[in-house]
Amino acid sequence: MAETLFSKIIRGEVPCHRVYEDPQVLAFLDIYPQSQGHTLVIPKEEVATLDQLSDESAAAVGRALPRICRAVLAATGATEFNLVQNNGPGAHQAVFHVHFHIIPKTEDSQFGLHWRPRKLDEASGKVLAEKIASALA
Amino acid sequence: MAETLFSKIIRGEVPCHRVYEDPQVLAFLDIYPQSQGHTLVIPKEEVATLDQLSDESAAAVGRALPRICRAVLAATGATEFNLVQNNGPGAHQAVFHVHFHIIPKTEDSQFGLHWRPRKLDEASGKVLAEKIASALA
Repeated sequence: MAETLFSKIIRGEVPCHRVYEDPQVLAFLDIYPQSQGHTLVIPKEEVATLDQLSDESAAAVGRALPRICRAVLAATGATEFNLVQNNGPGAHQAVFHVHFHIIPKTEDSQFGLHWRPRKLDEASGKVLAEKIASALA
Repeated sequence: MAETLFSKIIRGEVPCHRVYEDPQVLAFLDIYPQSQGHTLVIPKEEVATLDQLSDESAAAVGRALPRICRAVLAATGATEFNLVQNNGPGAHQAVFHVHFHIIPKTEDSQFGLHWRPRKLDEASGKVLAEKIASALA
């Protein structure tokens, strides 16, 4: 993977508004926030997308998320939030190093989801679930 | 927390199109998919929002995510996807048991993000980061 801005932030060569760090995880404010308190949580492992991340880094990021979420809520006064993690340029990824966005729902929030569900067809759902389960086995 | 539909799915009292299970995590197809292959990943721990989740459950879900993402991509042929996890009714949460949406970007996808970033003000960013970091300390 090509090195990104986030590698420089991890090494301290580019400054950030850091809120959390442990041996495997770093969290800092997004400099292009969707809302007040918009925070990025990244593994120090350098991979572009979540499907490429090692089990160990993924567990470390997972473990850190609830406590970082609590701190973002405490600091902003928000009670609702979205966690978003984008993979691929067509899915809104702009920096090609895995990152999780914590986006608190504040009054100034500009963030939203296009959420247009349809009912799953049972028969095709069964086939698809078996296909995904097989890929996991 | 009030029991939700997901507790019944975890206990096998309500059927699901299961794709993955381990002692702490369950994954199954969303019955109101945003796209072909839209999968939910949940901790078996019964809490409503991510900020309430135990470190152990959060690590278990984190560890399982990359492999489930890989399987969803393999089964659908998608190469891009979004991971979304909503907290609170105002943030699109409908079932009050923590769940992560894996939404592959397929041709039939109806999903999108309103992404309207503005530049972070440096001075207020510094104050806010210190406030979040203090809440974490």
